[in-house]
Amino acid sequence: MSQHISFVQREELKNKPSSDALGFGVHYTDHMFVMDYEEEQGWHDPRIIPYGPLTMDPAAMVFHYGQAIFEGLKAYTTPDGTVQLFRPDRNMKRFNQSCERLHIPTIDEDFLLNAIQQLLLKEKDWIPTEEGTSLYIRPYVFATEPFIGVRPSKQYKLLVILSPVGSYYGDQLSPVPIYVEEKYIRASVGGVGEVKTAGNYAASMKAQKEAEAKGYSQILWLDSKENKYVEEVGSMNIFFKINGEVVTPELSGSILNGVTRNSVIELLNYWGIPVREEKISIQEIFDAHARGELEEVFGAGTAVVISPVGELTWKDQTIQVNDKNIGPLSQRLYDTITGIQFGKTEDEFNWTVQVDEVRV
Amino acid sequence: MSQHISFVQREELKNKPSSDALGFGVHYTDHMFVMDYEEEQGWHDPRIIPYGPLTMDPAAMVFHYGQAIFEGLKAYTTPDGTVQLFRPDRNMKRFNQSCERLHIPTIDEDFLLNAIQQLLLKEKDWIPTEEGTSLYIRPYVFATEPFIGVRPSKQYKLLVILSPVGSYYGDQLSPVPIYVEEKYIRASVGGVGEVKTAGNYAASMKAQKEAEAKGYSQILWLDSKENKYVEEVGSMNIFFKINGEVVTPELSGSILNGVTRNSVIELLNYWGIPVREEKISIQEIFDAHARGELEEVFGAGTAVVISPVGELTWKDQTIQVNDKNIGPLSQRLYDTITGIQFGKTEDEFNWTVQVDEVRV
Repeated sequence: MSQHISFVQREELKNKPSSDALGFGVHYTDHMFVMDYEEEQGWHDPRIIPYGPLTMDPAAMVFHYGQAIFEGLKAYTTPDGTVQLFRPDRNMKRFNQSCERLHIPTIDEDFLLNAIQQLLLKEKDWIPTEEGTSLYIRPYVFATEPFIGVRPSKQYKLLVILSPVGSYYGDQLSPVPIYVEEKYIRASVGGVGEVKTAGNYAASMKAQKEAEAKGYSQILWLDSKENKYVEEVGSMNIFFKINGEVVTPELSGSILNGVTRNSVIELLNYWGIPVREEKISIQEIFDAHARGELEEVFGAGTAVVISPVGELTWKDQTIQVNDKNIGPLSQRLYDTITGIQFGKTEDEFNWTVQVDEVRV
Repeated sequence: MSQHISFVQREELKNKPSSDALGFGVHYTDHMFVMDYEEEQGWHDPRIIPYGPLTMDPAAMVFHYGQAIFEGLKAYTTPDGTVQLFRPDRNMKRFNQSCERLHIPTIDEDFLLNAIQQLLLKEKDWIPTEEGTSLYIRPYVFATEPFIGVRPSKQYKLLVILSPVGSYYGDQLSPVPIYVEEKYIRASVGGVGEVKTAGNYAASMKAQKEAEAKGYSQILWLDSKENKYVEEVGSMNIFFKINGEVVTPELSGSILNGVTRNSVIELLNYWGIPVREEKISIQEIFDAHARGELEEVFGAGTAVVISPVGELTWKDQTIQVNDKNIGPLSQRLYDTITGIQFGKTEDEFNWTVQVDEVRV
């Protein structure tokens, strides 16, 4: 796929937010990448145009039947001023896996990654350089055909928008309390939980709000069949360090195959720390705590990188993990992964991809 | 809630399609109902305006996290020219149940029904009068706030659009072949399968297309826990007549509480035909067929009313139901329900609601 990407320059550029007021997902850059799909033409008309409103028919299928998927990755500024991406090939691959699961036409992965790089070149002045800041990249696709019968859409729109974001935690990691959800289920094997569909997130919000109302930051989801096996936390994967060994739920078909999850596993292997992907019941975790063997619990995801868990509540039992302190392994993983992402730690895994010609 | 609904008349009315070329969900009327939600103001600015494009920010949350739900009902023309709705209170109630499940702010049910009636008054010339035709009514709501962090949106848009539709089957019912799905799961208890979220439909499309490719019209979904209990068919509820008695899956928490489903149960009770709502394994259905006791199978839903099933395939076994003919009970239910809907059969249940002042 070697279509030319056309470009329309925004006439008046926006004011950029100061790097201490970035937040997450609030500011968008001057331009966006857009591409259309029609059954007859396939994906066509790739273009970088000023960020601005979309015109949508009220019958557009995304509003009715929810064919919509997305990815999330970041562009990082390194000390020498180059800009790099972290394992973007995995995001491109999962983008297509998500498309396939919702019967959305896939896109050439190299073309999409190239389009993202071209957009970054145009928006290089938006890439923040302060400690911990980055440019969040959101590729997504949704159904646009105006038709309200239930079947896959014949028209789609693919966009990439960019948002400068601050560090999720500010200067330091902060252990969070987690609620083990028993009433609501996120996903089941055979469903769409292993990909990034819009509907997965909509379905999680009520449980998340109820947990927040009880004072918890996030939910730990259990499996749909037996309501006893650990799945994932909010929108992160989860890891447990028990008696010197790390375990994380295996990719069962209902768990997201996270990029950070995989990076954690590869790092642990490289460091010689035992790590297993397997079915883990929540009872095992509480039992390990009772034996004094539950050393650390942490989530892993693109937004937070590593998020230590300080407290777990399941039914009427609450346990504290590592006295609610950040564990040394959580900290080491956070430092190493962000170090590689920001070009401060040597990338022994070839995880980073330089964005050509972008130098801020 | 007694807000005034403002009205902007379309300048040039559309040409109306002829009643033999209506199809389903292809044509939309001249006007639509729109209302907005902001956290500070609640639902506000109800208006009937010309049907036309919406302006959406690319970061609007519906594209990313899928908070979107809908309802579907129809307006029917009776022989004396009045227009009526069929059990709209149940659609209004379910509209709010769907909202609640996705943490979308609910709306006053009477107000929404009144808004629909006012829209119908404006669009009365669009209500088709030919045998079997009706005006499909689509109320829906979706998240519009431009924000790409995962949490419920603080802004929403509620719309009602109208589409004149033909009879689903033309003149007569036609038994369809159904594929019992084993690989994909539609919903699990604790999930969102019992309400009408956009994401539920997106998640069903791949399985539906794969079944179509094998020559089947629809899928019969099984439960997520044991993959053996019958749930629903495509976007319909399902009924089995076995040895003189009718059974349908109970409302377990993962099955849609269909308006037609409930109407079928009430009619059967009224007619003195035994009907039970219970857990039914697919094995029981095949066993009943082997004993020669499986008399009829049919789906029930707003679009099709009653859809007879002629063939069921599960794993490598295919059974034919009633020699692929329409069963007498399926036909009687279809005739009675459509008779009531179109004002040709006495409505002993007070199911129909006249739309005041609409007389076509």
